[in-house]
Amino acid sequence: MASPRTLGVLLFPDFELLDVFGPLEVFGNARVRAHFTVCTVAEAAGPVASGQKVRALADYGLADCPPLDLVLVPGGFGTRREVENARLLDWLARRAAAAEITMSVCTGAALLARAGVLDGRRATTNKWAFPWVAAQGPHVDWVAVARWVDDGPVVTSAGVSAGIDMALHVVGRLVDPAAAEELATFLEYERHRDAGWDPFAKVHGLA
Amino acid sequence: MASPRTLGVLLFPDFELLDVFGPLEVFGNARVRAHFTVCTVAEAAGPVASGQKVRALADYGLADCPPLDLVLVPGGFGTRREVENARLLDWLARRAAAAEITMSVCTGAALLARAGVLDGRRATTNKWAFPWVAAQGPHVDWVAVARWVDDGPVVTSAGVSAGIDMALHVVGRLVDPAAAEELATFLEYERHRDAGWDPFAKVHGLA
Repeated sequence: MASPRTLGVLLFPDFELLDVFGPLEVFGNARVRAHFTVCTVAEAAGPVASGQKVRALADYGLADCPPLDLVLVPGGFGTRREVENARLLDWLARRAAAAEITMSVCTGAALLARAGVLDGRRATTNKWAFPWVAAQGPHVDWVAVARWVDDGPVVTSAGVSAGIDMALHVVGRLVDPAAAEELATFLEYERHRDAGWDPFAKVHGLA
Repeated sequence: MASPRTLGVLLFPDFELLDVFGPLEVFGNARVRAHFTVCTVAEAAGPVASGQKVRALADYGLADCPPLDLVLVPGGFGTRREVENARLLDWLARRAAAAEITMSVCTGAALLARAGVLDGRRATTNKWAFPWVAAQGPHVDWVAVARWVDDGPVVTSAGVSAGIDMALHVVGRLVDPAAAEELATFLEYERHRDAGWDPFAKVHGLA
């Protein structure tokens, strides 16, 4: 059996809790432990406060983070500051180039866009913040109506809770569809299997 | 305006990530900051490793935790050990007696049951682990088919993702229904508004 893929989830001050912990619940679940190892990474290892104030611990700093097969970038109000963080964007560009799949949830797509990772690619993001995120990536093919967009090495999701559906989709793609279904049932989660399901685009005047 | 209610979320080793961070995304959201302040509490303040391995920080230990208006107990495999933790159960019994609402997600109901908090009350829990949890509370009126059960000062939810629906319900009850709807839309979350919605009870032979 192949060794597990390592997923690194980026943390920064004022990250959105569910953007991080929805996907980590999926990829870190005991049911897929043979396939995924998860860790958290921030500018420096140690405590990072979420937008909800509660703190998580970064296992690694940017400089000492191990090789990552999968990278996940959450959103949150902290992205408004981090789009100007050259050191972080440089790290993202290098890690995305080396990763099998780079993912974002919500406004995390703004960081990937500013790092150049989404140039020439199809991507989506939070629908409430869509205009601001889209402005961060003029060379990105932004998709307004989407729960998530799978563009091969880059998979981006809509806002907050959409990260759970995206994570289940990626588990289905990398492991097998039955593993994703079993996980959703374990989580007692009525997943959205259709990447095009998106009533929130309409709420925010995007469809 | 009344001062915000303080919600304390219990952490223990091998807690389930989404049980904790789904509800914290809701109660800790900037949109309801006038109504809720959130914190985390564990046997001792500091890092606590989830069942998914990723670590969160407990703001307080049991001994120095401030007064709590709302208490939330998550589930996870750690509950199998914590049901024997007399100090924790005693703390839960005392805090629940003083709280306006005590909540559990998933197998967190096992801890409330063992602490006596659910005696004579209606409650639900994870459907996969239902028989084990129910055995922890012989004097509890266990409800097998339920997304959540609101029994006034005690509100318990089904497994993992159900905590998000329960949290939105409690926001609707304590703040107003429109606030819960607005939050769900912000989270791009298709919430379950019916406490009786529960396809997972059938999956696990409970209905």
